[in-house]
Amino acid sequence: MDKKDKAYPHLAWTEISREKVFKTPIFDVYAVKRKSASGKTATFTLLECGAWVNIVPLLKNETGEDCFLMVRQYRQGSQALTLEFPGGLVDHGEDPETAALRELREETGYEAANVFFAGQINPNPAFMANRCHTFVATGLRKTSSQDLDENELVDFELVPTAAIGKNMGQGVYDHAIMTVAYFWYERWKKTSGNPAK
Amino acid sequence: MDKKDKAYPHLAWTEISREKVFKTPIFDVYAVKRKSASGKTATFTLLECGAWVNIVPLLKNETGEDCFLMVRQYRQGSQALTLEFPGGLVDHGEDPETAALRELREETGYEAANVFFAGQINPNPAFMANRCHTFVATGLRKTSSQDLDENELVDFELVPTAAIGKNMGQGVYDHAIMTVAYFWYERWKKTSGNPAK
Repeated sequence: MDKKDKAYPHLAWTEISREKVFKTPIFDVYAVKRKSASGKTATFTLLECGAWVNIVPLLKNETGEDCFLMVRQYRQGSQALTLEFPGGLVDHGEDPETAALRELREETGYEAANVFFAGQINPNPAFMANRCHTFVATGLRKTSSQDLDENELVDFELVPTAAIGKNMGQGVYDHAIMTVAYFWYERWKKTSGNPAK
Repeated sequence: MDKKDKAYPHLAWTEISREKVFKTPIFDVYAVKRKSASGKTATFTLLECGAWVNIVPLLKNETGEDCFLMVRQYRQGSQALTLEFPGGLVDHGEDPETAALRELREETGYEAANVFFAGQINPNPAFMANRCHTFVATGLRKTSSQDLDENELVDFELVPTAAIGKNMGQGVYDHAIMTVAYFWYERWKKTSGNPAK
């Protein structure tokens, strides 16, 4: 508990035991037994997995319009195509910014002259402990072809920035983590104001 | 595949088999075997769980300031307190709006005269198929005391709306799904413009 939590001891739970009950290639499942301040015990289901990153790459299209460089892929959970910002898992020992630039390079073949931290958050603290880190990239140039993981099939394309906000939650813009990245981008733009280069 | 997907057949995967490999109180885990357009087969890990809802309740505090009615709780995944919009799971057969108003009532004892749909999205289509639905509520009045689920310990309080945007991703504002709800609220406010009552 941090200092703030100390003001609300009646809300806190204390861990009694933790057991890994299932293992998958993308996360492990734990059954965690905890005790409330009033002495009640309960078992909670938690997922453990590594940190996630995504990156909002800004560049202009042929007509000079501000665009995002986005990736189109089939999502196994929703069984549908999405248009998203590049991103993925942080490798063991890798820092989030390096991971974000690596994912950008692997998924699109682009490198960025400038990278800015835009925000980070827990994807779902109800049952997860990891974080998703978001960066904004400018000064983009194509330096290589894609270098995809096995079982990754990804197209990339330029999408006008003006189209995204009103289309979020519809069609191919169907990923909460991308909505958050876009929210960080808008906040970053308002406070840092770096235009696409 | 919908019509749009047909333009990108090289990105799609077709299901071969699906096996439930683990069951927890909050979700089931599936191993799903699929085949890519080029004939490659792979097994993907998916989570199956019901729909989620949350509700952004608008009201004024004693000094007339626009506020959200928010809930403070200990989150088992992050092992920390959060301040969030009321919300939870949609019950079997329940429609999302009814579920959102029920969660509001159970977690805070408030009822709303007006409720507006604000947005919906897949929390994470990489491994989930469910949706999170967000509503905005106005015309709030306290009609009862809290009616919490077993193992739910929740405080509620008024938080000035102006404080949220810049604090997202910090301290108690650490839940991606809440950031999305706030994003929907801001979009709703811009397009529908209903003020807090």
